Amino acid sequence: MTQYHPLTEQEAIEYAKSIPGLFQADAALSSREIGDGNLNLVFHISDPAAGTSIILKQALPYAKVVGESWPLSLDRSRIESEALQIEGELCPDLVPRVYRYDTILALTVMEDLSDHIIMRKGLIERRVYPRFAGDIGRFLARTLFHTSDLGMNQQAKKLRLQQFINPDLCKITEDLIFDHPYTNADTNNFDEAIQDEAEALWNDQELHLEVARLRQGFLTNAQALLHGDLHTGSIFVTEHSTKVIDPEFAYYGPMGFDIGAVLANLLLNFAGQEGWSPDNASRSEYRRYLLQTVKDVWATFEREFRSLWNEGCVDRISRTPGFQDEYVRQLLRDTFGYAGCKMVRRIVGLAHVADIDTIAEPAAKERAQRLSLAIGKALIKHHRNAASIDELIDIAVKAAE
Amino acid sequence: MTQYHPLTEQEAIEYAKSIPGLFQADAALSSREIGDGNLNLVFHISDPAAGTSIILKQALPYAKVVGESWPLSLDRSRIESEALQIEGELCPDLVPRVYRYDTILALTVMEDLSDHIIMRKGLIERRVYPRFAGDIGRFLARTLFHTSDLGMNQQAKKLRLQQFINPDLCKITEDLIFDHPYTNADTNNFDEAIQDEAEALWNDQELHLEVARLRQGFLTNAQALLHGDLHTGSIFVTEHSTKVIDPEFAYYGPMGFDIGAVLANLLLNFAGQEGWSPDNASRSEYRRYLLQTVKDVWATFEREFRSLWNEGCVDRISRTPGFQDEYVRQLLRDTFGYAGCKMVRRIVGLAHVADIDTIAEPAAKERAQRLSLAIGKALIKHHRNAASIDELIDIAVKAAE
Repeated sequence: MTQYHPLTEQEAIEYAKSIPGLFQADAALSSREIGDGNLNLVFHISDPAAGTSIILKQALPYAKVVGESWPLSLDRSRIESEALQIEGELCPDLVPRVYRYDTILALTVMEDLSDHIIMRKGLIERRVYPRFAGDIGRFLARTLFHTSDLGMNQQAKKLRLQQFINPDLCKITEDLIFDHPYTNADTNNFDEAIQDEAEALWNDQELHLEVARLRQGFLTNAQALLHGDLHTGSIFVTEHSTKVIDPEFAYYGPMGFDIGAVLANLLLNFAGQEGWSPDNASRSEYRRYLLQTVKDVWATFEREFRSLWNEGCVDRISRTPGFQDEYVRQLLRDTFGYAGCKMVRRIVGLAHVADIDTIAEPAAKERAQRLSLAIGKALIKHHRNAASIDELIDIAVKAAE
Repeated sequence: MTQYHPLTEQEAIEYAKSIPGLFQADAALSSREIGDGNLNLVFHISDPAAGTSIILKQALPYAKVVGESWPLSLDRSRIESEALQIEGELCPDLVPRVYRYDTILALTVMEDLSDHIIMRKGLIERRVYPRFAGDIGRFLARTLFHTSDLGMNQQAKKLRLQQFINPDLCKITEDLIFDHPYTNADTNNFDEAIQDEAEALWNDQELHLEVARLRQGFLTNAQALLHGDLHTGSIFVTEHSTKVIDPEFAYYGPMGFDIGAVLANLLLNFAGQEGWSPDNASRSEYRRYLLQTVKDVWATFEREFRSLWNEGCVDRISRTPGFQDEYVRQLLRDTFGYAGCKMVRRIVGLAHVADIDTIAEPAAKERAQRLSLAIGKALIKHHRNAASIDELIDIAVKAAE
């Protein structure tokens, strides 16, 4: 197929058949399109007789959810597959395997993870994932360290930065995370019950100053190759497995943005526990599990990151005593700040989270929203003074009292 | 000419004739190759009868001065001509005009500035340039503001960042400015008389920590399109004119690196005044002129930068009160730090400055070297606390007492 066009189910089947080694030549394949109708078609192609399956993910040139046609470049499909390849080299067990990338069709053929569920769904169901903190901490440490000037050839890093310039997707983040929530923007979307919270966000100059700093970091700090959208909807899990998917927003930015994304989404689910009665014993138990996970994610990340640094930092002068401590402290601060920004925008902005929006009882939903904003704003305002992950836990605990 | 090769004088003449409008069709042209034999051929092509002339600058694929063949990419020629074009749009009176860029030959055809002299030479001759501070302050403000996320479309800025990725030239800076002076590297070059100073640099961990921070900024802070090598050898002057040349090192980096380069070279000449007897009245007069120039450069930059920001900052949340002050304060701190690094490397590193190396009397030369190092180290160590340009002046004055 020599020209871009969105595939039909039949074409998807034909395409899957044409890749050697995936299916038997005579297999009777079936196809289901399982995308969420947003930015991509996702074909689940299977051979029911053999019990094998594959995913074909194709980028669409417009954003159906927004109504107006946002001219999103098909180049994001290339970025996604190239990011998956790099992540796959660094953490082969933590990302889906990529079999092929088709530039013309903006199509990635990858491992099917249908036996996993989206982590956000799992957390809403209050499932427990004992491997997760260790897995994601390792994912963060390895991808961030090894794509930064600390862990790869510094001239190759510049070429990689060039490869991952991602204007369209970065603009979405710059608008929706670092701008619109802080002004009366048309894209904002919040329940009437929290109109007062929204207006407080528009008027809080102390908050805007902190957000301006964090925005500047997002725009200019080409620190490492980020996943760029590492929320719990981008993570597939089972009790025994963690897979990070959808790195379409990948670009060179501040490490704390990826770490903050993970923590923010754990905290949004923490806030979403307002959907359960306070008398419900497992509510506080699950909250303790979430906060312990937050702590363990950071602890694993820090331990692995420092270990990679001590074993293989390529930058001679960065090995000066004291620099690593300072560097990690700055990562913690960035993490607080970016986590806060991601929490705030999910309450008043264009895109929400099911952890909160699926709370049926309006008063409980409102409490969850206000709790999220309280935690988010405190993280943003406190970030430049952060010294320990315990402070993040304390902010959440105090806000929920 | 369809394949790269270094031009002969005759080919240079033919090439110049082939560009419409530069010379009369029947003109008798002459050519002199006037390059410093380093990285480029520079042909001065003239029509003596008409009194017109032009420069053809061609990149060579190796660095003759280093002996070994440093495989420098010819792409630096493209970067130079594209940077000159952007600078020319922003400050047409402050850069040579570019008539053509030839990708295959790595050749730029530009305005001849033979009536100007290299500023470093002018300062060594203790000439005075009353326009300079205002001109260079304006050059810095306009080029840095308008290529940053404050002063241009932020998605176009990412494409420009991509266009100016410059691994080879950045590596030269990363090695020679931010690494080798601080270790017993083979590339270092210093007079035996200051062996003690060199060893002190290798052992000063407090200094290394500061340099590590500044190096990290150089590697990751994609703040604006820098000239990248803005020393007084990259500036052509007359009493009435200032022209910035040679932006081969252009890339997206921290603004303070360009500002610091200018100030560092003024301060190196300041130190070089040790070549004159302390009884020489014009020695202290010239030093006062240099320090006033330093002050005026920063003052002009700050004024113009803030003015551009107030009139046309494209970033909504950056206009939050307080953010501009903090941003400019950080620029001052970066400027101190990068100025210090540039001074230090010119005394013990691979490349020196004529302001100091041409001092005939060994004891005076040694004093100038030690003075440069004292100022440079103080700037590096103090930079994170810098609050006013006066502190930089004080550091220089006190060190020279």
